[in-house]
Amino acid sequence: MKPTNGLAMASLTDLYQITMTYASWKHGRHELPAVFELFFRKNPASGGYTIFGGLEEAARYIENFRFTEADIRFLRDGLVMSRKKLVAEFEHELKAGIIVAIKNKYWKRTYCPWGEETRVEVKYPHHDLCIAPPMGGCDPDFFRWLRKIDCSQLKISAIPEGTVVFPRVPLIRVEGPLAAAQLVETGLLNLVNYASLMMTNASWYRSAAGREKIMLEFGLRRAQGPDGGVSASRYSYYGGFDGTSNVLAGRLHGLPVKGTHAHSYVQGYESLDDLEDRSLVGMNGKNRDFVAAVLRWREKLGFTHTNEGELAAFIAYAQAFPRGFLALVDTYNIQDSGVPNYICVATALRDFGYNPIGMRIDSGDLAHESKMSRGQFIRSEKVTGFNLSGSVIVASNDINEEVLDELNKNGHEIDSFGVGTHLVTCQSQPALGCVYKLVEINGDPRIKLSKNPEKRTIPGRKSVYRLVGENGFPICDLMLMRDEEPPQSGKPILTINPLNEIERSRITPVRVIELLKPIWDGRRLYPVMTPDQIRNNVLSQIRAVEERRPDFLRRVNPTPYHVSVSGKLNEFMRKLLLTESTIPEYK
Amino acid sequence: MKPTNGLAMASLTDLYQITMTYASWKHGRHELPAVFELFFRKNPASGGYTIFGGLEEAARYIENFRFTEADIRFLRDGLVMSRKKLVAEFEHELKAGIIVAIKNKYWKRTYCPWGEETRVEVKYPHHDLCIAPPMGGCDPDFFRWLRKIDCSQLKISAIPEGTVVFPRVPLIRVEGPLAAAQLVETGLLNLVNYASLMMTNASWYRSAAGREKIMLEFGLRRAQGPDGGVSASRYSYYGGFDGTSNVLAGRLHGLPVKGTHAHSYVQGYESLDDLEDRSLVGMNGKNRDFVAAVLRWREKLGFTHTNEGELAAFIAYAQAFPRGFLALVDTYNIQDSGVPNYICVATALRDFGYNPIGMRIDSGDLAHESKMSRGQFIRSEKVTGFNLSGSVIVASNDINEEVLDELNKNGHEIDSFGVGTHLVTCQSQPALGCVYKLVEINGDPRIKLSKNPEKRTIPGRKSVYRLVGENGFPICDLMLMRDEEPPQSGKPILTINPLNEIERSRITPVRVIELLKPIWDGRRLYPVMTPDQIRNNVLSQIRAVEERRPDFLRRVNPTPYHVSVSGKLNEFMRKLLLTESTIPEYK
Repeated sequence: MKPTNGLAMASLTDLYQITMTYASWKHGRHELPAVFELFFRKNPASGGYTIFGGLEEAARYIENFRFTEADIRFLRDGLVMSRKKLVAEFEHELKAGIIVAIKNKYWKRTYCPWGEETRVEVKYPHHDLCIAPPMGGCDPDFFRWLRKIDCSQLKISAIPEGTVVFPRVPLIRVEGPLAAAQLVETGLLNLVNYASLMMTNASWYRSAAGREKIMLEFGLRRAQGPDGGVSASRYSYYGGFDGTSNVLAGRLHGLPVKGTHAHSYVQGYESLDDLEDRSLVGMNGKNRDFVAAVLRWREKLGFTHTNEGELAAFIAYAQAFPRGFLALVDTYNIQDSGVPNYICVATALRDFGYNPIGMRIDSGDLAHESKMSRGQFIRSEKVTGFNLSGSVIVASNDINEEVLDELNKNGHEIDSFGVGTHLVTCQSQPALGCVYKLVEINGDPRIKLSKNPEKRTIPGRKSVYRLVGENGFPICDLMLMRDEEPPQSGKPILTINPLNEIERSRITPVRVIELLKPIWDGRRLYPVMTPDQIRNNVLSQIRAVEERRPDFLRRVNPTPYHVSVSGKLNEFMRKLLLTESTIPEYK
Repeated sequence: MKPTNGLAMASLTDLYQITMTYASWKHGRHELPAVFELFFRKNPASGGYTIFGGLEEAARYIENFRFTEADIRFLRDGLVMSRKKLVAEFEHELKAGIIVAIKNKYWKRTYCPWGEETRVEVKYPHHDLCIAPPMGGCDPDFFRWLRKIDCSQLKISAIPEGTVVFPRVPLIRVEGPLAAAQLVETGLLNLVNYASLMMTNASWYRSAAGREKIMLEFGLRRAQGPDGGVSASRYSYYGGFDGTSNVLAGRLHGLPVKGTHAHSYVQGYESLDDLEDRSLVGMNGKNRDFVAAVLRWREKLGFTHTNEGELAAFIAYAQAFPRGFLALVDTYNIQDSGVPNYICVATALRDFGYNPIGMRIDSGDLAHESKMSRGQFIRSEKVTGFNLSGSVIVASNDINEEVLDELNKNGHEIDSFGVGTHLVTCQSQPALGCVYKLVEINGDPRIKLSKNPEKRTIPGRKSVYRLVGENGFPICDLMLMRDEEPPQSGKPILTINPLNEIERSRITPVRVIELLKPIWDGRRLYPVMTPDQIRNNVLSQIRAVEERRPDFLRRVNPTPYHVSVSGKLNEFMRKLLLTESTIPEYK
């Protein structure tokens, strides 16, 4: 299968992956067996957990990994645009008379709206775009070799998408020839980082709002580009949201798509005269005057002072969607126009046999306005005899976790939240810091030193187990060296905090789960998971923790989950640290 | 031309655009002439300006705007996956024995690594993904009509890409039949918001670092998805950066691509024994023992205690790129290993006739380490006689505007900055709040009310002029009503702050620039601008302001630039405000 985004190709990478590969190739080291691990060092936004996402796209990226002819040409020759191509490219400008001439150099009228509007000389002696070859002067054989490289020689294991994961545990392990294993770094990081962040973020919003609320993602317009939008919709659903407004994401990834109308729709109507068709076919099949029905309720309810354009817009929308009537009530005035108009139209719809869905508030104090609206529903019932308690109140203005907490504190009558900007840009921490580190080459475990212990890597190809305790709840994730026996249920094992070897525990697991599963071995092994499988997996894990150990989920100072190493790995790491580090000399 | 990102298609939209369109179509209002304007209300991150970006992609989106058969099917019928398709989709799982059977329902072993690993029943009676039709029950004729809609009936004007722009000024104006003009909203916002934010953000970084510094964008791995990465590279270049590490962005958009090697490359070498080939062909064509030359300098300089694996890695890299040697010096210890190793290899390269490029620091205190490194360069010169002052020091760890300010305050020896995460995720404000508002329908100007005056829209189709004063510097952007005479140079005109009508000025412009240029009229009119045209346009505008009115660019409390309306527009707006707003009754 192809990646969802056509840009997720081999050349979506940092140049240094290719320059490094060249250096390895040049020295005949490009096929040394190597092991890389992808992991993160800290949970985002000081949270207690992360949800691993992006693996499906990563698997597709691996499957389709190939440099194209265009990639190779660009690396070897750079970008040179010929005069002929230039003329073609600038056809519009020539026709529009913006370019006066194309000679060896040509004149062009440029816009300079801040300062001068002048004719500026633009020099393109024989070519326009001339980007120096990023890999100029390299051995031509290298490019022939690069053209053929793919992931057929790699073995990849990973934790399944939607798993709750913790710092320093390898999420993806890539084994194989140095060059291929190195070249997938940037692509994997790009596909995993945002996906995981987004799923984690969505699960925070879900927890903050409460299980029973309907959570909708509305962020496409503020997302970081088209793919940012599609990914945000997809991974917020995986992380526990109920739907999105994004049509394309719904179609591509099988997500429920929701939406009603905007302020501009309401503004489009000035008065009831804008309604040419006044009728509506009721559930009983009879066609009657719907406008008259609405106006009767308006009179009875005393709501005659409301904005008439807005009322017309609601009526028109209800005529189009009698089964799906949800009105945006804050174009003019929520309590004095929007809600009364909603009540009139909703009650008339009831007379025609339909159930109105509800209303949306997109501005003002959401707690106050929702309570006031609910109050109007209740008061109107005395006049209409129609119980509006089935009407959903959706709220959607600049919602973030703090707003949700504040709303819960103050009480509110909101049933559903539409969340945009802060969800899709991950306001509380806009990037997850996944890294991809070499842990073994040619059979030798390698370490990355740092003065900061958290930035050190844990050397060697590791196996990782989740140790589950008596109450069915995981106690810790344990990393072991390649040749160690896996932990066994019922058998005590010593676990050590790799950041502080004094912190040790002896754990007798009731069950042992191996976290890394093979997903690629020259061909894809990773099963396609449906959105609901991933989402249910996330929700069930979060619920299990909510019920048993909510302290792990706390957004401030959560209990840290233990990620440990075996005694043997700890000793080995210590030895390597001492060998590899230099002793600075002071005089 | 096609959009760079294949996802930028008609269905990349919020569902409500289509439901609203249906309601309009149903009432025969979909072809009412309408005018929409795209603008933002506040400069990002309390800054003084914004740079408008994304127009090229917006133009391509408009040109290719069409719903596909798949889009229509999804809207009308939802997503239903047949058993047959299901089996095909889950082939991997069947083969791998993960799925035991596919019957009317089937059993599936799911991973539940947080809790139990169990066999869970997954019910898919006859289909798997079943997403309810987002537009179920709508008139079938509507879908036939929707299949044909495109932008051929629209007229679009816009401010050229790379222009410095201000709040409330329309950046794009779309005129035409209500339905088509409405349907492009989300796509335009998505393409413009992040692009403009990124260009603005890049220009802040450029200003903070200083004009003479080389600014490189390194953020692909932390960007919000593949397109986030490609867009970040492109628009940071447009905003004033010098290059990117992103190969694909370089190829697609003609950007200079830069990069060297990573820590893993250095870790890949354990000792000098890893170097099988010790030779290097010098500039004079002679092949000599390069390793020996390096080791001679190492001995002379007394740098024999450095990490030998690192030295081997540097040598190997220099052999591969003798003309492009730039070493990452912080894998083990910057001052005690990396910099000494760099000096040895760089000096040996000099002996072979090559100019080493420099070194990169990716951790530690960048000010201190860069100064210490420069100090080592100077001390080594006494031994080697080789002036290393041409060696560039690149710094690249978690750099943001505050870090740049702090570095400038403390002094440093850094020549070039590689900026990643905080640049591409726009840390200081992760989304620009562009909106798209209906300002006129059927010839009637419309207004969006709000208790917050900043959230009100300025009604009617407007023309916008930048008024330039005597010193060649713009004084204000002025919006006029459709039928008003354009301002003329040398003629005084009254301008009014639309947020506070007491703030008035009488301006006699020396020159008048019309900001909105026609870019689309059923066919594309907008000229293709090369990256350097856009970039130079940005840089020259920012420099002009830096030189004359730096107070406009200040990152804290900048002088606000005036965006005003004419007296006539102000009066009209006031009238409409009073007509459209309701008077709440209190008892």
